Amino acid sequence: MNKLLVFQSDFGLVDGAVAAMYGVAHEVDRDLRTYDLTHDIKPFNIWEASYRLFQALEYWPTDTVFVSVVDPGVGSKRKSVVAKTAKGQLIVTPDNGTLTHLKKFIGITEVREIEESKHRRKDSEHSHTFHGRDVYAFTGAKLASQTISFEEVGPELTVEGIVEVVLGEVFKTEDSIRGSIDILDVRFGSLWTNITREDFNEMGFDYGERIEVIIKNGPTMVYNNRITFGKSFADVYASEPIIYINSLYRVAVAINQGNFARAYNIGTGIHWAIEFRRLEEK
Amino acid sequence: MNKLLVFQSDFGLVDGAVAAMYGVAHEVDRDLRTYDLTHDIKPFNIWEASYRLFQALEYWPTDTVFVSVVDPGVGSKRKSVVAKTAKGQLIVTPDNGTLTHLKKFIGITEVREIEESKHRRKDSEHSHTFHGRDVYAFTGAKLASQTISFEEVGPELTVEGIVEVVLGEVFKTEDSIRGSIDILDVRFGSLWTNITREDFNEMGFDYGERIEVIIKNGPTMVYNNRITFGKSFADVYASEPIIYINSLYRVAVAINQGNFARAYNIGTGIHWAIEFRRLEEK
Amino acid sequence: MNKLLVFQSDFGLVDGAVAAMYGVAHEVDRDLRTYDLTHDIKPFNIWEASYRLFQALEYWPTDTVFVSVVDPGVGSKRKSVVAKTAKGQLIVTPDNGTLTHLKKFIGITEVREIEESKHRRKDSEHSHTFHGRDVYAFTGAKLASQTISFEEVGPELTVEGIVEVVLGEVFKTEDSIRGSIDILDVRFGSLWTNITREDFNEMGFDYGERIEVIIKNGPTMVYNNRITFGKSFADVYASEPIIYINSLYRVAVAINQGNFARAYNIGTGIHWAIEFRRLEEK
Repeated sequence: MNKLLVFQSDFGLVDGAVAAMYGVAHEVDRDLRTYDLTHDIKPFNIWEASYRLFQALEYWPTDTVFVSVVDPGVGSKRKSVVAKTAKGQLIVTPDNGTLTHLKKFIGITEVREIEESKHRRKDSEHSHTFHGRDVYAFTGAKLASQTISFEEVGPELTVEGIVEVVLGEVFKTEDSIRGSIDILDVRFGSLWTNITREDFNEMGFDYGERIEVIIKNGPTMVYNNRITFGKSFADVYASEPIIYINSLYRVAVAINQGNFARAYNIGTGIHWAIEFRRLEEK
Repeated sequence: MNKLLVFQSDFGLVDGAVAAMYGVAHEVDRDLRTYDLTHDIKPFNIWEASYRLFQALEYWPTDTVFVSVVDPGVGSKRKSVVAKTAKGQLIVTPDNGTLTHLKKFIGITEVREIEESKHRRKDSEHSHTFHGRDVYAFTGAKLASQTISFEEVGPELTVEGIVEVVLGEVFKTEDSIRGSIDILDVRFGSLWTNITREDFNEMGFDYGERIEVIIKNGPTMVYNNRITFGKSFADVYASEPIIYINSLYRVAVAINQGNFARAYNIGTGIHWAIEFRRLEEK
Repeated sequence: MNKLLVFQSDFGLVDGAVAAMYGVAHEVDRDLRTYDLTHDIKPFNIWEASYRLFQALEYWPTDTVFVSVVDPGVGSKRKSVVAKTAKGQLIVTPDNGTLTHLKKFIGITEVREIEESKHRRKDSEHSHTFHGRDVYAFTGAKLASQTISFEEVGPELTVEGIVEVVLGEVFKTEDSIRGSIDILDVRFGSLWTNITREDFNEMGFDYGERIEVIIKNGPTMVYNNRITFGKSFADVYASEPIIYINSLYRVAVAINQGNFARAYNIGTGIHWAIEFRRLEEK
């Protein structure tokens, strides 16, 4: 039985690049079930590629094969690998940091380097800029169709050696918790922080409580106001900001039916610090 | 045999939200055939969600299951429902107006409230902001895979009680017909009105006839000129405006190979009135 | 066994037009495997439609059916056709230039006109503006599901008679080669020229060599500088421009991890000339 094959890239859907990968996959096995995670990762943005895999992967069957192609180093010595998660899912990707969130939050148990001499599309020897089509889609399709096993991908590498990007940290005091803004819920402009529900709960905040929120971009104060902690958007007025636990069980900040990030020009990354501080008057 | 499952949302395709819904659906049944209506409904725009369902639904097989997630009231007391159309298609959606056009123009014969205690994804009890993933995709997949029947969704509600948004009206005199601009044919900037082919035909306009067109945004005149009524774009010059019957059999206005909405800054909604008036000189 | 069915259009994914075509196809045969090439062809841009087919088609199985709907002449006397390529793939399209690149670079062996009286969706007789849904998706689905054969599409036309758009030419001297900028690798802003790898190789340039590049928009000089010829992006610094052979084996120019087209306001078309000239000092 074929496994599901899910693609992610920074190619966009405007030209024929994604369709070329799909074609290669269905040339390997026309009955493959192929799906998209997203192809709108910002060009070269490895952080986003890593986060989106973490965001979506756990909802898919445990034997799903993912192909992620955000590959600014195509043609360099960066390795092409297949990683296996603790649950058994496979990810075909350049080893450039794309596996960071999965390694930390889901767990990677094994990783193998793709032997290009065996797993490169026929007649692609003069093509040096599109490993997504020539190597990754091709290898992912062979894995999903069970034409090859994980072991046949190539030699084993160490999980410790997987390239990682730097993740933000979380700092707690008695009265405050501070993390960074990992990513946006793009369409709605909500800020998704790296602070987990568990860490936030330890602060003892109650639903309905107003909390001081301070957002800084490096040393620069960008936002400082009081926001209600709610269970869901319906707990505040339309147009009112809210602190809530998002669908990945992390602390998030939004404007109900508005766009927080756009309203205050908020960005993402480990230099975007966000602090939640208990108010004196409580 | 599995039914087709078609998704619509205002999530966009930029992040992992749609892929999470797809994953949940394929976790219910990996062989499901899943498709998209659109995920580019403007955030929180229930009108558009309602219209796009109306626009596309009738071309799909009569047992198709649709999941529509435009859900500004997530976490409020708005109900989660499954509606059955006169032709037998099912729509899984928050009951917030999304069913308006289907109820009026296609017909809804039955509606049931989703019993969340039975039809909520396992381990999602702390998630209060993503019913699209935790309830709607999950329930839609169970219906499409025939794991549950329509009757097992939950208790029956009355069709009369379905929440509706306000639709525009059509007014006729001997010499003119006036309606509102429902929506744009987005890429081409054509105006799609709420005036049906039947109502327009009763005016007795002929192909090739020039008709006076008046567009107002509330009390403000935005456009007033004469436009030829044609069968298709080929009946006028490139760059010339045209009145025509669109692919949903409603009156529309376009610029052949141009963009009418952008040319004259035209918007949509019941406060955007459009009138077609017989010219004196005829 | 069903063949794969791949759609391309200039409809975008924002409204319900593509979903209507998908619905029609699955109404013909619910088990069809349907995929997208792209729906973001610029409105009415036949050149792009022609190029994207050429870019993606060869990676798909040889019996795949493509439906391409970029159709500014809908309702005019332009013909609706199905073309067969040298490899056996079928393309359902208006005969308006969309087949240009395939005819020149892949080869078209046969073309037939769609007999609309036989291959038009039931109840669509009052619809004159959406042949994509009413004729092309419907005919493509019947071909992919083998409900009809290629011969049953309609009468044969001559391959010579296929409508073509004008392609750019390539000029060589001893020290230079000049072509035009066919298209962009959209997300990354790379320029894809019409100069093939073979023609470029005949110039005898070496990897690592610096080459003078001159870009003109009609008579106007837009860019003139020296760029390194590399095998892949990794051969230059991040932020450095590079000349390389792209994934379609044509000469391309990019900024490694930047956007060349945006940096210098470069467009596409046969009036955008690009010349590569051997440097004196070599």
